[in-house]
Amino acid sequence: MILPVPDTGPVLVIAPHPDDEVLGVGGTIARLSRAGREVHVCIATRGRVERFGQEQVDTVRREARAAHDILGVEHTHWLDHEAAALDTEAHGDLNRSLADLVKRIGAQVLFVPHVGDIHLDHQLVFLSAMVAARPAQQQYPAAIFAYETLSETNWNAPYLTPPFVPNVFVDISETLDTKLAAFSAFASQVRPSPAERSISALSALATLRGATVHRHAAEAFVAIRQCY
Amino acid sequence: MILPVPDTGPVLVIAPHPDDEVLGVGGTIARLSRAGREVHVCIATRGRVERFGQEQVDTVRREARAAHDILGVEHTHWLDHEAAALDTEAHGDLNRSLADLVKRIGAQVLFVPHVGDIHLDHQLVFLSAMVAARPAQQQYPAAIFAYETLSETNWNAPYLTPPFVPNVFVDISETLDTKLAAFSAFASQVRPSPAERSISALSALATLRGATVHRHAAEAFVAIRQCY
Amino acid sequence: MILPVPDTGPVLVIAPHPDDEVLGVGGTIARLSRAGREVHVCIATRGRVERFGQEQVDTVRREARAAHDILGVEHTHWLDHEAAALDTEAHGDLNRSLADLVKRIGAQVLFVPHVGDIHLDHQLVFLSAMVAARPAQQQYPAAIFAYETLSETNWNAPYLTPPFVPNVFVDISETLDTKLAAFSAFASQVRPSPAERSISALSALATLRGATVHRHAAEAFVAIRQCY
Amino acid sequence: MILPVPDTGPVLVIAPHPDDEVLGVGGTIARLSRAGREVHVCIATRGRVERFGQEQVDTVRREARAAHDILGVEHTHWLDHEAAALDTEAHGDLNRSLADLVKRIGAQVLFVPHVGDIHLDHQLVFLSAMVAARPAQQQYPAAIFAYETLSETNWNAPYLTPPFVPNVFVDISETLDTKLAAFSAFASQVRPSPAERSISALSALATLRGATVHRHAAEAFVAIRQCY
Amino acid sequence: MILPVPDTGPVLVIAPHPDDEVLGVGGTIARLSRAGREVHVCIATRGRVERFGQEQVDTVRREARAAHDILGVEHTHWLDHEAAALDTEAHGDLNRSLADLVKRIGAQVLFVPHVGDIHLDHQLVFLSAMVAARPAQQQYPAAIFAYETLSETNWNAPYLTPPFVPNVFVDISETLDTKLAAFSAFASQVRPSPAERSISALSALATLRGATVHRHAAEAFVAIRQCY
Amino acid sequence: MILPVPDTGPVLVIAPHPDDEVLGVGGTIARLSRAGREVHVCIATRGRVERFGQEQVDTVRREARAAHDILGVEHTHWLDHEAAALDTEAHGDLNRSLADLVKRIGAQVLFVPHVGDIHLDHQLVFLSAMVAARPAQQQYPAAIFAYETLSETNWNAPYLTPPFVPNVFVDISETLDTKLAAFSAFASQVRPSPAERSISALSALATLRGATVHRHAAEAFVAIRQCY
Repeated sequence: MILPVPDTGPVLVIAPHPDDEVLGVGGTIARLSRAGREVHVCIATRGRVERFGQEQVDTVRREARAAHDILGVEHTHWLDHEAAALDTEAHGDLNRSLADLVKRIGAQVLFVPHVGDIHLDHQLVFLSAMVAARPAQQQYPAAIFAYETLSETNWNAPYLTPPFVPNVFVDISETLDTKLAAFSAFASQVRPSPAERSISALSALATLRGATVHRHAAEAFVAIRQCY
Repeated sequence: MILPVPDTGPVLVIAPHPDDEVLGVGGTIARLSRAGREVHVCIATRGRVERFGQEQVDTVRREARAAHDILGVEHTHWLDHEAAALDTEAHGDLNRSLADLVKRIGAQVLFVPHVGDIHLDHQLVFLSAMVAARPAQQQYPAAIFAYETLSETNWNAPYLTPPFVPNVFVDISETLDTKLAAFSAFASQVRPSPAERSISALSALATLRGATVHRHAAEAFVAIRQCY
Repeated sequence: MILPVPDTGPVLVIAPHPDDEVLGVGGTIARLSRAGREVHVCIATRGRVERFGQEQVDTVRREARAAHDILGVEHTHWLDHEAAALDTEAHGDLNRSLADLVKRIGAQVLFVPHVGDIHLDHQLVFLSAMVAARPAQQQYPAAIFAYETLSETNWNAPYLTPPFVPNVFVDISETLDTKLAAFSAFASQVRPSPAERSISALSALATLRGATVHRHAAEAFVAIRQCY
Repeated sequence: MILPVPDTGPVLVIAPHPDDEVLGVGGTIARLSRAGREVHVCIATRGRVERFGQEQVDTVRREARAAHDILGVEHTHWLDHEAAALDTEAHGDLNRSLADLVKRIGAQVLFVPHVGDIHLDHQLVFLSAMVAARPAQQQYPAAIFAYETLSETNWNAPYLTPPFVPNVFVDISETLDTKLAAFSAFASQVRPSPAERSISALSALATLRGATVHRHAAEAFVAIRQCY
Repeated sequence: MILPVPDTGPVLVIAPHPDDEVLGVGGTIARLSRAGREVHVCIATRGRVERFGQEQVDTVRREARAAHDILGVEHTHWLDHEAAALDTEAHGDLNRSLADLVKRIGAQVLFVPHVGDIHLDHQLVFLSAMVAARPAQQQYPAAIFAYETLSETNWNAPYLTPPFVPNVFVDISETLDTKLAAFSAFASQVRPSPAERSISALSALATLRGATVHRHAAEAFVAIRQCY
Repeated sequence: MILPVPDTGPVLVIAPHPDDEVLGVGGTIARLSRAGREVHVCIATRGRVERFGQEQVDTVRREARAAHDILGVEHTHWLDHEAAALDTEAHGDLNRSLADLVKRIGAQVLFVPHVGDIHLDHQLVFLSAMVAARPAQQQYPAAIFAYETLSETNWNAPYLTPPFVPNVFVDISETLDTKLAAFSAFASQVRPSPAERSISALSALATLRGATVHRHAAEAFVAIRQCY
């Protein structure tokens, strides 16, 4: 925006669990995709069959595919780490699988969950993504943004865990409907109002984030690092 | 809530400018008032006639009275410091006028603007309210909460000025309509969507704050100090 | 305190190790208990016999019972996770055992250790308690407070790990003696002055926290979340 | 960078005193200017003749003109508030003169001093710039970045005043020489090594900021707000 | 302590109002003085005769002299800025009077009030002291520490204004009595228990700060800057 | 520096991996050593042979010995925890091996890595070092400082993970050459410019840290705790 930086190159949205990418980045994905940008989604974990049953695991994956089609995602990468148990495997393993993916697709822009989210998986995915994106060599993602996830970001400990104070706003007035449609495709994850995972809460968030910058709808992010 | 503390005693909402008290605390004022609690509002400043004209100044004051009637405010106190110029008078003067009021009405609960709001008047009113509420003697307000103000709280500098991260939620499902009616009474201050001072943004904020605690609508605050 | 919220319902004090609940919340437990409130204590871990010996483990448990009797604790719940080794079990396990307990007793108020304490067990218990208390459904604890623990809270890294800056004060002028008696019952844990775990340090803390709000003795907490 | 945002539109660098804009943004100004972008500089204050003498005031202004020519600045705006005395005039006055300028030139990108700099003028200019750039209407600057100033940013109180932790890096490998030439043009302000205002310190900063992102030289900023 | 730095050179304790230096640094002053170190105290303000009366102003000054004699202060410097009104004079004036003093006595170590204290005078004196101590030339104070002041430091807004989290502890086991005697000499400022300005609160603070580092009494500070 | 504290006693520099101690503390080690102070280095981990090969592991160790000879290190302690896998062993084990070492050599001063470094090993070593240095008994390290490590400290998440804001500066004008020589001895770890692990970046950092305090070269630290 400041300088004639490359406006091309893949965008990678990293989600700890399926639907985080829709809740946090759905409208932006749709906008980028419509603008011809190549958007990848990476789902870091999969639910344990023994805990959720094969059917539930399959359902969520099928819903994710439908949602991603709606949003215009180019490719979805399933890393299949064990959900709700990332703390029980070596941190280095997650680092490596994310680093490999970032490198393989040549991601230029990363969207990552917020390190202050209440779910430990979110925190660990954030930290591993930072390692995967280290500017240690000539090539690395030029921009990293953290997104907010309803039912995760607002439930941690105010003033004691890292706050989400948005400083990047993307106008999604044109794609909010698409985002809501994609979230609706996650039928197993949508909850009725007044839950945070409800359509009404998701709409309210878009309206509020938009109003902050005088737009009808927006998604908001925290700027982690940008290199021009 | 923890202990049988006095559930009686006046509540004082301190607003830098008229309508801040409605944007931030309107639903809670209505709920408290309906529950029989005595709620006072203090408007710290008045617009300068030379800048806004007598008519605008009179209009706002008339709107405030109407809004406060709708909310069930017991008494409105006009301190008449000069708006948008609190930094040009001695800080001690504002300290004293707030301290006098707090003492005179025996306020047990204070609602104050957020110190991180972008408007310097909000910051200075917060700091003076803290001085006015010092627990330096036997009697002082037992609880202080900071409220958020659309068009002020979200526009300061993320991570560099004090963030508003809410940790107190008051269910206003029953009084959101009253709050919106009171804000509508401030006809000169309401803006059309997508402005932050619009009815739609105010509604969205209530829905979002409510969803965070599984309620249909809420107002959110930051706990500053509570003494039981 | 603000609104006619339910002043009934169980209070749950979550302690990583026996005696944390006395150091941090002893006077408040006694005050609540005298006021007829049902107070539960949950001890998250137990010492490993192979490290401390059966006798020491039994001694501490017996001391805890005596202390809890003195304070008027209704029921003590022993979760028996392994002390000083919470990081070696899956975080999800601790989440579940705390969530089960919170739900089973219908806890309305939680007291939790501080996330910035130097002991990793304290940090992990805090985080799990936050998960256990998520406002994801209609019912959840309406208030959460973090307490300070001498010999843990003051020894972490100033300005780099989360600070304990108290904003909730409970007057324990009437129950400080009971608190000190309860701590004395933990004979194996009390240290002679000038240790932080001494009677004199615990008394000094009560005097200081009290003086801050013009009371003869107080316990101080950090407000994590309150929903009215 | 993410979306096809307007890569055109004026850039405004706001400096409390002449040479801050060179120390903090010189290399980026030169890079933007070479890329055909219209860059404005605003100097908020002027030295008092009674304190510095007419000659010194004239000298600095002449040096600034030379430096800005070297960097390729399109236009320099002198607001002529009184240097080292911004706290003695009404904050609203500075707000207005900055807001007028931002609006008049239609600034799309702002570079502002850091609110944590030790000089009160820097802090006040930052806060007024935030007011001037409020997203309260359809049009406002789409991006705001804070820059660091040697001899100001590193001398405030660590962990007690807002830290400068850079998260935006602009490669100035091609324009570092131009930046150093522009700073050298401020002969009255350059100090010999080991002062922070020396050529060697300015070079070292560029090398370090560059190395952090694997570039030979960079300028670093804090992202304040971006709207796409 | 690390390196053979000069253990000689004047120490300067800067107090916004008389007695702050005793509350925060009294025991350390006495210890330094006994060790042969030259300790200066600077009182930044004086009470306004029109507000406090000549007698009260004279009384406080007389008490200060007595207290300083007890502590072994070498010299007391009265800057006579107007108390509780530092915000009404130009910040540059306070900067200059402090800078002149620091330079004149060649202060090697500074003790300054905490920037997060509730009293605006404390905040402004802190900021001016930082300016006065800038390491802009070869000579400057090699160490700066912020002290805590009962009745000021604990009354600001937790998590919203800068916290005092001590990281430097000075053992005052040998000089606590002297400190308490010096504070008692400020008869007009001492308050009965349970006020924060009581002997019992001051003793409790010393016991607590000491216990944190396994000493019988200590004063605690925040490390601002040290240069070896 | 303030008081006649013991200027003798061992200094211990704790490094997660070999070369961290040189990058962060090399110049200070050399200065201390020349001044006759006994300096120990502890390397917490060793590379896994299966990952790096025996030759690489041996090479690094040999390089470390050479570097430590150049700096004048008295003794190097190899704890041999597994590198890049500290999260997979019990935190208590690292606590104990560091505590044993601190006690065995009677360390008076500790230099530890920064808790905000991007490498999890650095974070865990910091936290364990804090446990190992708890002031729980009469004897403990009197001073703890955190150091910065190029290629670790600047790559974490600004404003979301703990920032490194230096407040302790040690003049290394006399020993910078020695530091650079020692780093050069780590031939396998040095990278060509513009990497952060290059000689030019390390030199630039020394120049910048020095300039901040008007010295030709310095190393900078964060003060964690000091007890006099």
